[in-house]
Amino acid sequence: MANPDHSRSHGRRHRRRRSRSTRSVDYHNLRNPFTPLNIYSSDRIVALHNASLQVLQEMGIKVLLPEARKILRDGGALVDDDTQMVRIGADIVEACIRTAPRRIILRAGSREKDVTLELGRLTFLSGAGAPHATDLEGGRRPSSLADYLDLVRLADQFDAIQMQNNMVEAQDIPTHLRHYPVMEAQLELSAKAPSILTRGRRQNLQKFEMLRIFRGLTDDDFTACPHMHTVINTNSPRQLDNPMAQGLIDFARFGQLSIVTPFCLMGAMAPITVAGALTLSHAEALASIALTQLVKPGAPVCYGAFTSNVDMMSGAPAFGTPEQVRANLASGQLARLIGLPWRCAAGTSSKVNDAQAANETQMGLWSSILAGSTIIIHAAGWIEGGLTVSFEKFITDMEVVQMFADLCQIRSGKEDDLALDALREVAPGGHFFGCQHTMERYQTAFYQPLVADWSNIGTWEEQGSKDTTSRAAEIWKEIVNNHVPPAIDLNRLEELRRYIAVCQASGGAPPNS
Amino acid sequence: MANPDHSRSHGRRHRRRRSRSTRSVDYHNLRNPFTPLNIYSSDRIVALHNASLQVLQEMGIKVLLPEARKILRDGGALVDDDTQMVRIGADIVEACIRTAPRRIILRAGSREKDVTLELGRLTFLSGAGAPHATDLEGGRRPSSLADYLDLVRLADQFDAIQMQNNMVEAQDIPTHLRHYPVMEAQLELSAKAPSILTRGRRQNLQKFEMLRIFRGLTDDDFTACPHMHTVINTNSPRQLDNPMAQGLIDFARFGQLSIVTPFCLMGAMAPITVAGALTLSHAEALASIALTQLVKPGAPVCYGAFTSNVDMMSGAPAFGTPEQVRANLASGQLARLIGLPWRCAAGTSSKVNDAQAANETQMGLWSSILAGSTIIIHAAGWIEGGLTVSFEKFITDMEVVQMFADLCQIRSGKEDDLALDALREVAPGGHFFGCQHTMERYQTAFYQPLVADWSNIGTWEEQGSKDTTSRAAEIWKEIVNNHVPPAIDLNRLEELRRYIAVCQASGGAPPNS
Repeated sequence: MANPDHSRSHGRRHRRRRSRSTRSVDYHNLRNPFTPLNIYSSDRIVALHNASLQVLQEMGIKVLLPEARKILRDGGALVDDDTQMVRIGADIVEACIRTAPRRIILRAGSREKDVTLELGRLTFLSGAGAPHATDLEGGRRPSSLADYLDLVRLADQFDAIQMQNNMVEAQDIPTHLRHYPVMEAQLELSAKAPSILTRGRRQNLQKFEMLRIFRGLTDDDFTACPHMHTVINTNSPRQLDNPMAQGLIDFARFGQLSIVTPFCLMGAMAPITVAGALTLSHAEALASIALTQLVKPGAPVCYGAFTSNVDMMSGAPAFGTPEQVRANLASGQLARLIGLPWRCAAGTSSKVNDAQAANETQMGLWSSILAGSTIIIHAAGWIEGGLTVSFEKFITDMEVVQMFADLCQIRSGKEDDLALDALREVAPGGHFFGCQHTMERYQTAFYQPLVADWSNIGTWEEQGSKDTTSRAAEIWKEIVNNHVPPAIDLNRLEELRRYIAVCQASGGAPPNS
Repeated sequence: MANPDHSRSHGRRHRRRRSRSTRSVDYHNLRNPFTPLNIYSSDRIVALHNASLQVLQEMGIKVLLPEARKILRDGGALVDDDTQMVRIGADIVEACIRTAPRRIILRAGSREKDVTLELGRLTFLSGAGAPHATDLEGGRRPSSLADYLDLVRLADQFDAIQMQNNMVEAQDIPTHLRHYPVMEAQLELSAKAPSILTRGRRQNLQKFEMLRIFRGLTDDDFTACPHMHTVINTNSPRQLDNPMAQGLIDFARFGQLSIVTPFCLMGAMAPITVAGALTLSHAEALASIALTQLVKPGAPVCYGAFTSNVDMMSGAPAFGTPEQVRANLASGQLARLIGLPWRCAAGTSSKVNDAQAANETQMGLWSSILAGSTIIIHAAGWIEGGLTVSFEKFITDMEVVQMFADLCQIRSGKEDDLALDALREVAPGGHFFGCQHTMERYQTAFYQPLVADWSNIGTWEEQGSKDTTSRAAEIWKEIVNNHVPPAIDLNRLEELRRYIAVCQASGGAPPNS
């Protein structure tokens, strides 16, 4: 269905400008090249896990949705409908951990865009959920559907972004109609698995139906495996609201992927200590996972954690801090303890695409990767603590993401030999530019940069003394302007549009909150 | 001798502006918090080590200095004075590795500034060796003594920079006189161990004498332990020039610290493969270490590696690339194989303090730290591939360096508890801002940023919409303007100045090259 040439076209257009590299890389199917790094002893991780079980069993979690409380009660939890509190026994939680799949294959629009999620794999997602967009020329504004489309195109272009994500809100579309163009855009412009926000059952079911129609699936085909993903944020501390509980239930029931992620800010919605925040985060994640498994054992669900701290002066969230690094590493240990694929996050509170933005994001990226995170969200474009997506930062972040993807490429044998013959060939004080060993490899030896400028200052000045943000502005526009969507079945697109028209005519679907 | 208050004053002045933190940290004495990360199998590392021994034994290294060839010949190496080639047997090299110290204590102007170097320890040094300086207001210029002094003050201010370093060349001082004010500045403005460049015996001995006089040491005191350090770069491939060989000899003879660092750019002065470049780099480092140990067994010497790649289109050096990450990690494995403390490096080829600069530097920093590097050079301020030191980048890099230093602080027990009582206290959907658990810890829980701005966009705009480089410009000026040098013995300063005057009157000491 997808254009077979398309999957090979990644980066070639903008690379062509600067490089004659003929290097062959696979940035889509990544295995983490690093041994996971522990920050706590395994005893302490077990103690933390047990403390989380104790929180769920003794203190419980407030579940606002009656349907969710019923499912949990039917599963053996102690439910008080007056207080909406649900206490879940450790045995129930442990049983649910056992039925959650260790390996999930997320189906895309074409097989080469499918994504396998399990511990040891590595995927990157763009920054998500922002109400604003910004770029060098247009400045900061409430994000629109036009921004949304451009960001879908950008995410489609890069192999190292394995799935689509809801980068910004299409604020120029009313909320009861927004999910139609947003879903259509993801399907039409990209073969990668789309992301949806869960905003009530009616919207959820319509989104399922849109994908089913567009992909030409039967109901059974659709529910047989996940074709889309959603991020479920708890309302820390210890609360699960209606749309999130509804999402967990609907996604589990229809076999779609929930990525469960408490967003715990130490000192604010979570205890001020790393271990305390993780006790809470882990408890909330386990309760959410339990709900999915009580709906349907084996339902696809990812564990998740996004834990950072606030500035205790102002309450403002901070990202890329030493505390987030510790929390990310410890979250990886918890994920390995329960054996599930999991998501983590990078981010920055910088307002612009400057050195702070890069530094904070990279602290998050490195720690997520070293933590063995399966899905790293907000890996590209996210600034201002998630309130804005920057088009230029998307590009400068992709440089880092691609470097990590490059580190995942296995290089040995001829590609990485000891070069004794070359060392014999080149005289002391000489150089290796022209030797045979170099000539055989120079086109494929090194990572080719996307936006980095390695030239000397004279050349750089001749080319306009552009900083990386200015260069990124040129690159994202070139990608967006030249984006080639995947080949699609026009009959199915027509059918999708008819379905949307019917839904719109009947008043759309208001978000449920 | 040093002002006892000074060692505690780190960061307090500029922190005071933004924080009521009362957190107590030790950023001077750091132990690497992470398990070293391997990139090659141990078999491959042994093969690489053996290949390096083979290079030295079969191909040899060209040593330009007759005195160095004599020392190597006396130590058993095969020397051809016509070709200046020296072939060193593997047994000689292995014996020299065994006599090189595993643990080195570098003495500073006061005991709390002493630095212990051994595997597992972690120190950061500023960017070094640049012929240019730049700052936001003054722009890029040939660096001067005034720049040098300001950079010594900056490096002195931060505990997470453990030693001084020759950040820029004082180009307004003739080379035969430059080492006098440069050495005096390091001694007078900072109690941290100074760095010198080795530019011939006469300069070396004068620098030794300057420190001996200023610290009030006998000749025996001086040679009993290292009081200063120098970086020795080989002239890759397989060549050791006069000033470098002279430096190795003089430093070893007088018990001062050489940090041996081949600067190997894959595809240029080194083979294009990571393993090939490291075969060369390791061989050159071992030859240099051998020279020090043949001068004086047990002489303080650090292993070192600085291996990155070039752009094969232009030959321009690149930093923070995936290839440098691999090389750094593998260099750490080689250092652990021989058991010596070692240096690594971060850097960027960006021309300005932008996102590229931050991203490339941080790729180098993370990989150096994960490689278990004992000394990370160019950790702050280095741009344009080392041709320029940026005052603003010094500050934005120090944010990252301080975050790493913070990760080295051990936090457990009350500082990082599971917070079950706090979780009981706060109702579902509530917050932890005011709970007792938070109140007991909020002043000390989190890392306090140096230059990062975590405020919301409204506050940030009210404060002038300054990016991190603009804020850094304010911070470095504040530090430089308010720098308090350590208390010093004025008689010794007077004696030092008399010595310098005598040297100057006799024509200084031309650099030997």
